[in-house]
Order: sequence, then structure tokens, then C-alpha cells
Amino acid sequence: MAFSEFRTLDETTLLDYIISVPSLSSKLDHNLEDIKIKEVGDGNLNLVFIVIGSRGSFVIKQALPYVRSIGEAWPMTKERAYYEAAALKTHGRICPDHVPQVYHFDQTMSLIGMRYLEPPHIILRKGLVAGFEYPLLADDMSDYMSKTLFYTSLLYHSTTEHKRGVAEFCGNVELCRLTEQVVFSDPYKVSEYNRWTSPYLDADAEALREDKALKVEVAELKSKFCERAQALIHGDLHTSSVMVTRESTQVIDLEFAFYGPMGFDVGAFLGNLILAFFAQDGYADRDAYKEWILRTIQNTWELFHKKFVALWEQHKDGEGEAYVAAIYDNSEVQRLVQKRFMQDLFHDTLGFGAAKMIRRIVGVAHVEDFESIADAEKRAGCERRALELAKLLLKEKKRFRDIAQVVSAIQQIQ
Amino acid sequence: MAFSEFRTLDETTLLDYIISVPSLSSKLDHNLEDIKIKEVGDGNLNLVFIVIGSRGSFVIKQALPYVRSIGEAWPMTKERAYYEAAALKTHGRICPDHVPQVYHFDQTMSLIGMRYLEPPHIILRKGLVAGFEYPLLADDMSDYMSKTLFYTSLLYHSTTEHKRGVAEFCGNVELCRLTEQVVFSDPYKVSEYNRWTSPYLDADAEALREDKALKVEVAELKSKFCERAQALIHGDLHTSSVMVTRESTQVIDLEFAFYGPMGFDVGAFLGNLILAFFAQDGYADRDAYKEWILRTIQNTWELFHKKFVALWEQHKDGEGEAYVAAIYDNSEVQRLVQKRFMQDLFHDTLGFGAAKMIRRIVGVAHVEDFESIADAEKRAGCERRALELAKLLLKEKKRFRDIAQVVSAIQQIQ
Ligand SMILES: Nc1ncnc2c1ncn2[C@@H]1O[C@H](COP(=O)(O)OP(=O)(O)O)[C@@H](O)[C@H]1O
Ligand SMILES: Nc1ncnc2c1ncn2[C@@H]1O[C@H](COP(=O)(O)OP(=O)(O)O)[C@@H](O)[C@H]1O
Ligand SMILES: [Mg+2]
Ligand SMILES: [Mg+2]
Ligand SMILES: [Mg+2]
Ligand SMILES: [Mg+2]
Ligand SMILES: [Mg+2]
Repeated sequence: MAFSEFRTLDETTLLDYIISVPSLSSKLDHNLEDIKIKEVGDGNLNLVFIVIGSRGSFVIKQALPYVRSIGEAWPMTKERAYYEAAALKTHGRICPDHVPQVYHFDQTMSLIGMRYLEPPHIILRKGLVAGFEYPLLADDMSDYMSKTLFYTSLLYHSTTEHKRGVAEFCGNVELCRLTEQVVFSDPYKVSEYNRWTSPYLDADAEALREDKALKVEVAELKSKFCERAQALIHGDLHTSSVMVTRESTQVIDLEFAFYGPMGFDVGAFLGNLILAFFAQDGYADRDAYKEWILRTIQNTWELFHKKFVALWEQHKDGEGEAYVAAIYDNSEVQRLVQKRFMQDLFHDTLGFGAAKMIRRIVGVAHVEDFESIADAEKRAGCERRALELAKLLLKEKKRFRDIAQVVSAIQQIQ
Repeated sequence: MAFSEFRTLDETTLLDYIISVPSLSSKLDHNLEDIKIKEVGDGNLNLVFIVIGSRGSFVIKQALPYVRSIGEAWPMTKERAYYEAAALKTHGRICPDHVPQVYHFDQTMSLIGMRYLEPPHIILRKGLVAGFEYPLLADDMSDYMSKTLFYTSLLYHSTTEHKRGVAEFCGNVELCRLTEQVVFSDPYKVSEYNRWTSPYLDADAEALREDKALKVEVAELKSKFCERAQALIHGDLHTSSVMVTRESTQVIDLEFAFYGPMGFDVGAFLGNLILAFFAQDGYADRDAYKEWILRTIQNTWELFHKKFVALWEQHKDGEGEAYVAAIYDNSEVQRLVQKRFMQDLFHDTLGFGAAKMIRRIVGVAHVEDFESIADAEKRAGCERRALELAKLLLKEKKRFRDIAQVVSAIQQIQ
């Protein structure tokens, strides 16, 4: 191995590193003369290098011991790379079509080598801002979410396997704490990191800090996030953790993975699509595209629901210990437990999705969907409508019985 | 250390063991000549030796690699002794008045040395069968439960401490699986281990296996048991895990401890008191005693509620990460979240308590409360009334708003 202790790589030292790591240099067919290395990390936390040679390519992601976008003032364990690699491998085994392959992991260097998602792959959020339609998106994301969540839950696992996984990912606690802070705490209190489109949203931000009923709901969601080890979740499944072309959908950036509530992943994805929807009014001529987003929201949940239940049916006599076959032994009781389970998961999805929306409007990390609206007043109008919907979902989630009702609620907000 | 590998002790080899372990022989003031050793284990799983000398005493509990009451046909990891010792120490630090002190732990021998709870301490269940009143019981048990559950939850812990504890106790998975099987599965299906007062309860047992609505509720409780790491719970807190005198209440037998839902402990204790109540009609002249049991049920919950909320108030500006002080920043929102939390915990308590009652009537392990009623028909009548209440609690738990309503429901069952 190249380096015996951690060092932050740059485009030059990475070359030395690659030369010394056979599993990486072999990906370039050992032809290192004409390779191009470029740092492209646009995320909040890590370095990402694209390495392209004439006979192969890959991506190197390195975790730094602090939050990149904030700097050394916000330390953050680089051990997160271990959990990202572990989750990439597990989710990749379960759903290889939608997760880039891991070529190499180096614990000392907090570094992952993985498949380069070559152009025309772009970050989904950028596609949503540009107004591109992705005909496979709902199908592929429902595939990814139904498979990874089902196959890492007690619907498929024995308790023994499950608790082994839970124990391992308890180690990713610093990333969980970061989520706790930025999603479930900071938006509801005064925090140095919070920001919003001021002065337009000053009163809205203050209203969140005064909304007692909302705080009760947020507390319940936070407990679920901290306590409920339901499946190995992605943990940060917004639209910048998905890379797409019209033919391909790939999920990246699993450093927040741990055993948590399934609804946190489904909610993150749908919540970010809803943000994209409300941002469209900041751009010109997007009526048809808004319809496509709404259809994608509805299709994603409906396909997810269908596929998840189908996996359950397929494996109902398997090793999974949640629903013992001899008890849930006829189609009527099976239908009843599935209905209860999916209804609860739907409500979790709405709650977590709403919390993820709120934090992107008044918290530390904003989204390009809104940030790319130059006119602040117009931007604030879009953000306010998104906030209104999020508050409704959070407080009234149990009143929604299916995704069509959510889509109607979105459409009704003016 | 005495023995370099595990061996099952008997009254003779235990003497050799004690001689070689200073922390034990010193408890006897090194006077080993006149000591008396007696195996008294009456539980399902382990060996328990009482060791009494003229100048000191202790108890030795040794875990065997199988379920004692069933034999080697039902293997069970002896590593459970590690978790029992760890939980005894943690709960003992939190609540020293009601947990026996640990003097010694030997991982190789799966053995714990602890304080001997000297006579007149008896197992609470035996006191309930005998009709003895314990004036401190509700106060002491509410003390134990409120403190151990509060101080091992995110109301007191940081996420970092919490996940460290969760990960450690994930190792006690075999004991969790045993509970999953005997509490949440076997009673609702045909199982070789199930038994009930036959033929009287044949139809009742069958009705449980056919009750779809009940099975839906049981599935939800089982998920909570498997997935929700809310606090370091005792895990087996029935009335045979409590030793009492009129002046002392001591909780023993923590081998099932893990991070699970708080309501599982509170429910186990209250559910077993309810079983004791329904058993009283099998004995003569117990009207006044039945009233005492009902008062104890009501007082235990009400005191638990009061003390738990008081601990929350006391530590609301502490390290606990569940409810950040800057968010839950005034008495009104604080009252709202406490109300929601305690209401949810109450409903969990009723659900888990009911599940624990059912399994004692139709499952593998029965309780002396009913077993000591010689007349099978009379016994079956008592058991049926307990079953009826348990089914009501399981299916309608959310309709109960306070413990007084539960007490009324108990009184209404004829
Ligand atoms: N496998 C990959 N192929 C192509 N580009 C990638 C790949 N992984 C990451 N990237 C690029 O790097 C950026 C940051 O990666 P990400 O894993 O999201 O890091 P962070 O955790 O810092 O957000 C992505 O937005 C994407 O543009
Ligand atoms: N510290 C103690 N002091 C006195 N008696 C005890 C003590 N611990 C256990 N016993 C006796 O041994 C019995 C079995 O102990 P317990 O811990 O419940 O074992 P098991 O796990 O096998 O049920 C108890 O019912 C009680 O009679
Ligand atoms: Mg990212
Ligand atoms: Mg697909
Ligand atoms: Mg990331
Ligand atoms: Mg016992
Ligand atoms: Mg025991």
C-alpha cells in the first residue's frame, strides 16, 4: 500500500498513490502515462477525483477529517469512508444496476475507488433544474429503494444477521449526529449556521421556531431516526446523491448509511422531488415539466409500494424473522399486516420528507433548485410554498392515505 | 483465576473455585471452613448457588450452554452471563437501592458473584400467591423503572454514548431471539412447546391462532421489540425477577437485557401483576388482596409517570440529545412533548404487558400464580378472564387514556 498514514491527496500525490495500488493501476491497464486527474468534489464533505486514462477510468473519493464546505472548524471523522464503502458494497450486491461498483478501499487513507459514472451522467438535481425528463427515474429509484430496504430488514434477515449489521453501523454515529443536528434541530432554533432568503422569509423562519405542534412531530421523527434500526438506509438520499442519464440511474454518496427507519430514505428522495417541483415556478415555461415531476413522485411511491410488497410475497417463507410464516399463514392476515406496514411506512415517508424539505429552506445547506433562482423575492415565494406543504405534511401526515392525495395537496398550494 | 476453561459447577467444585478467587473468598473473610453451599436455581435457565459462611455470604449464578428447564436440546449461549453482569452493573450504578451488588464476574466460567438477598427476601410472585402485601412495592418498582429507563435513554445520553451501548448489547441476540419466539411467535401458532389448561382452554388457544386483528397488533409490537433501541431494558421484568420483603425490593435476573422499548419492561411488570390479580379467584378469601393488587398496578404506573417526568425536568438542560433545550424552550411545548411521549409509552406498556400475559397462559412457560390452582376448571376460568383482558388491551390499547381506565376494565371482566 502506498501510504502508511493518512494524508490529504491532491492531483499530484494521487498519481503516486495509484501507481502503488495494483487494483487501481490495473483498472487503467497499467498505462499511467496519459492519465488525467481532476478534482470535482462539489459536495459538502469530501474530495472526489476523476481519473481517466486511455484504457480505463475510475473515481477516487477521499474523506477528510472535517466538513469540507465549512473547514477544520467543523471536525468530522474520516472513518465515515469505511461505512460508505461497506454500504456501497452491500447495496451494490443487492442492486448492482443502480450502485457504482467499488474497486478499492483503503482504511488508512479513508479512500474509496469506484466506477466512474461517465458522461452524460449528471447529478439528478442539475437535471431537474435544467428541466430534463428521465423516463426511467421512478422505475429505477423504486427498484433501488425497495430492494435495498427490503433485503436489509427483518423481512429478509434473521435477527442474528440484523443485530450484527446494526452493531457495525452504530460506529457511524458522527454522521448520524450531523443529521440529527441539521435536519431535526437547527431549523427549529436559532443557530449560527441557519440561513434563509432574507428578509422575505424572516417571519416564516421565526414561525417555525414558534410552532409547538410542529416541534412535537419533529421530536417523534427524531426519536425514530435515532432509535429505530429498521434497515440499512442510505441516509442522505436527496437528488444530489443520484446521477442520471436518460438510460441510467446510479445512487452515490452513502457515507451517512446506518440502520435506521426506511421512511428516511424514501422521504428524502420524494421530499427533494417536491422541492424541485416548487422551484420550477422560478424558471420560465415549466408547466409540462411540473406535471412530469408530479407523475414521477406518484409513480415512485406506487412502484416502490408494489415492488416492496412483491419482494415480501416472494420471500414470505424465507429466513426473515419479522413475520413468521406459520402465524401470517393465509392471504387475508398477510394482506392486513402488509397494509398496516405500508401505511406506517407511508406516514414515516411523509414526515421525514417534510423535515428534509424544511431544513433545505431555513437550515445550513440549501439546494440548487432554489439557489439558482436569482430573483430573491421570486425565490422566497417558491420556498414559502414548499414550506407550507412541508408543514402540512408534518402535522397532518396521518390524514393522507395515498400518494395521490399528497399530489393533490401539492397542486393546491398557491 | 480458578479454572482456565468453562465447567459446570456443583456444590463441591464451587468450593475449589471460591478458594481460588480472592474477591469471593474475601467476602467470607477467608473463613471457608464452615461455609454452606446450596444450589437453589428455580428459574428456567441457570444454576444459582447460595454461599453462606459465618462471616459473610454471596450468591453465584452460572449460565449453562443450554436452557436448563428444557435441557441440552435447546442450546443457549452462556455468553448471556456477560450481558447480565454488564446490565446489573449499569442498573446497579443508576439504582443501587434496588439492584444487588456485583462482587465478581468470570467470563470464562459464565459466572456472576453477587449480593445474597437474605431471608426474609422471597420471590415477589410467591408473595403474591401467598397473599402478602408489600407497602413499598409500587414506590420501589417505579423508582427502579423510571431511573433505569430514563438514564439509559437519549433523554439523558448523547447519541454517541447511546449507540455505543446499543452496539454492545446487540451481542445478546440469542436471548432476544428467545423472547421473540416465546412471546411474539409461539402463542399465535401451533408449537410443540405450547401448553394450556386443556381441554378447558382448547377453544381459547385456537381462537388466538385465528385472530387476525390480534396478529396485526402482535406484529407491530414485535417490530418495536426488535428495532427500537430506546433504553437499556431489563428484558424479563416479571414478578419472579423481583425479590421482596416488606422493607426491600430487589430486581434480579437481567440476562435478557438489551437496548429495547421501555414499554417492554413496564408492561412485563404490570402484566404480571394483572395475572396475579386474575389468579386470586383461584384461592380463598382474597377480596381485600385483589384491591391491593389493583391499587399497586395503578400506583406503579402513576408513580412511574410522575418520577419519569420529574427526571426529564431535572435533566432537561443536560447532555441528553432527544429534546434539545433550545427547541423545547418553554413550559408549554415541554408539556406537549412529554404528554405525547408518555402517552406512547403508556400504549406500548399496555401492548407489551398484554403479550406477556398471553404467552404465560398458552405458551411454553407458565406462572405459579395459576399453576398453584389445583382445580383445573377453576384455573381455566381465571386464565380465560386474564386472556380476555389481554386481548382487549392488545386490540384497543389506544382507547385507554390512563391507568384508571385499565383498572376499570380489569374490574369489569367476569
Ligand atoms: N462515481 C462517480 N462518478 C462520477 N462522478 C462522481 C462519482 N462519485 C462522485 N462524483 C461527483 O463528485 C461529487 C461529490 O460526490 P459525493 O459522493 O456526493 O461527495 P460528498 O459526500 O462530498 O457530497 C458528485 O456530486 C459527483 O459530481
Ligand atoms: N442475589 C440473590 N439472592 C438470593 N437469591 C437469589 C439471588 N439471585 C437468584 N436467587 C434465587 O435463584 C433463583 C433463580 O435466579 P434467577 O436469576 O432468576 O435465574 P434464572 O435466570 O435461571 O431464572 C431466583 O428465583 C431466586 O430464588
Ligand atoms: Mg454528495
Ligand atoms: Mg431498474
Ligand atoms: Mg456526502
Ligand atoms: Mg429468573
Ligand atoms: Mg433468567
